[in-house]
Amino acid sequence: MIRAVLLDLSGVVYDGDTPIPGAVEAVERLRSQGLAVRFVSNTTRSPHRAIVAQLAGLGVTVGRDELFTPARAAADWLTREGCVPDLLVHPDLVPEFAGNKFGARRAVVVGDAADAFTYAAMNAAFRQLIDGAAFLALAVNRTFKDADGGLSLDAGAFVAALEFAAGKQATVLGKPSRDFFHAALSGVDCAPGQAVMVGDDAESDVAGALRAGIGSALLVRTGKYRAGDESRFAPHPTAIVNDLAAAVDWILDHRG
Amino acid sequence: MIRAVLLDLSGVVYDGDTPIPGAVEAVERLRSQGLAVRFVSNTTRSPHRAIVAQLAGLGVTVGRDELFTPARAAADWLTREGCVPDLLVHPDLVPEFAGNKFGARRAVVVGDAADAFTYAAMNAAFRQLIDGAAFLALAVNRTFKDADGGLSLDAGAFVAALEFAAGKQATVLGKPSRDFFHAALSGVDCAPGQAVMVGDDAESDVAGALRAGIGSALLVRTGKYRAGDESRFAPHPTAIVNDLAAAVDWILDHRG
Repeated sequence: MIRAVLLDLSGVVYDGDTPIPGAVEAVERLRSQGLAVRFVSNTTRSPHRAIVAQLAGLGVTVGRDELFTPARAAADWLTREGCVPDLLVHPDLVPEFAGNKFGARRAVVVGDAADAFTYAAMNAAFRQLIDGAAFLALAVNRTFKDADGGLSLDAGAFVAALEFAAGKQATVLGKPSRDFFHAALSGVDCAPGQAVMVGDDAESDVAGALRAGIGSALLVRTGKYRAGDESRFAPHPTAIVNDLAAAVDWILDHRG
Repeated sequence: MIRAVLLDLSGVVYDGDTPIPGAVEAVERLRSQGLAVRFVSNTTRSPHRAIVAQLAGLGVTVGRDELFTPARAAADWLTREGCVPDLLVHPDLVPEFAGNKFGARRAVVVGDAADAFTYAAMNAAFRQLIDGAAFLALAVNRTFKDADGGLSLDAGAFVAALEFAAGKQATVLGKPSRDFFHAALSGVDCAPGQAVMVGDDAESDVAGALRAGIGSALLVRTGKYRAGDESRFAPHPTAIVNDLAAAVDWILDHRG
């Protein structure tokens, strides 16, 4: 029985500014069949509001509480734990943390900072960590599909660098964090086992969702998908499909 | 029976431009007692010639073949394997690879590139790696003691980042590579078990030497040494001493 669908965005619904063929109609089809749809993105280069606007531009209406991003999860974490962040994130993401200015402790927050990943910024974060700061990773994805079509380094590589040097592990806020997948279902009348995840990242989206107790996880052959991804990480995908349109066919066939 | 002494440089013989008190005399004492002395440095911000000159400036005469650096080991490796390097190293180190211009394959070479560790340079190295280039790490040290006295990120963190993202492991050329320790003894009539290593890095110098079959390894409490280092990595040091002068006392007491 499938009651809710969790969708990754980049590489599943759109590539850069271009919708993936059939994706917008596929989302519409899920909704018209009465399935709850939630968007779970590890993109940490754009603020929440910009992603909602980008989806609206493609013709996908998304309510404020239907989109889950690691930055929002991190801001909640910082408030709850009373920490002030030292941000190593993309400049566009800084305003998401405007509310987190006061607290007794410091926390290093690492996202996909892109060109802001300078040696000086990495070293400043490292020094905060060995000085006792908490360590949050918005995401630990290895790669993303870049504007030129090639794979580029994502936040996970830089998180790994800091973990290695500081000898401490980051708390991951986005996918594949169990809490993140479960939070995305919090407003839906659906147990994790009744949800299905669709993504192009065999590790964070697919293996991550299954480990978090999501009932099934589909790998699409769009976005950053590369041949061999289906067996690169365990657990393996429930099914491999060409794109989101095919994923929706699968979901409607298996909704029980 | 101790016949040869391998000495780390930064943090053991000098800190930045300043000799560590008693260190220069200690080196002299080893030589006057007929022990072979070889210098094994993982510093990858200075070329071989500059390190020899720096030591001469401190009053330590070092022959060309008494100093072993990862850059030199890497240049030999590239020649042997017929690879052209893609260098992600400190600008001062680039001339060390001037001879490695031709070859059938590419090899990414990562050293402590300092401010040259930009996102763009890291991403270019990553793309070469997933395109099939060989992967050489001059060193995998986590930290070094910086000019301001604090610990700073060393090459190991950035090697870890690339290993994580590309899913392949680097071949390490400097310490703690077994080949590197053994190469340093190649011109000396001394089995590895008859040599002693002295260093301030409990992982690369001390545990690394012992794993490579060096007979004993002393950890000095100078340079980047921090309380607790003696038990942080296995195997533990043969002995912990205050500084190089105390290390030489230990060596002369235990030379058999």
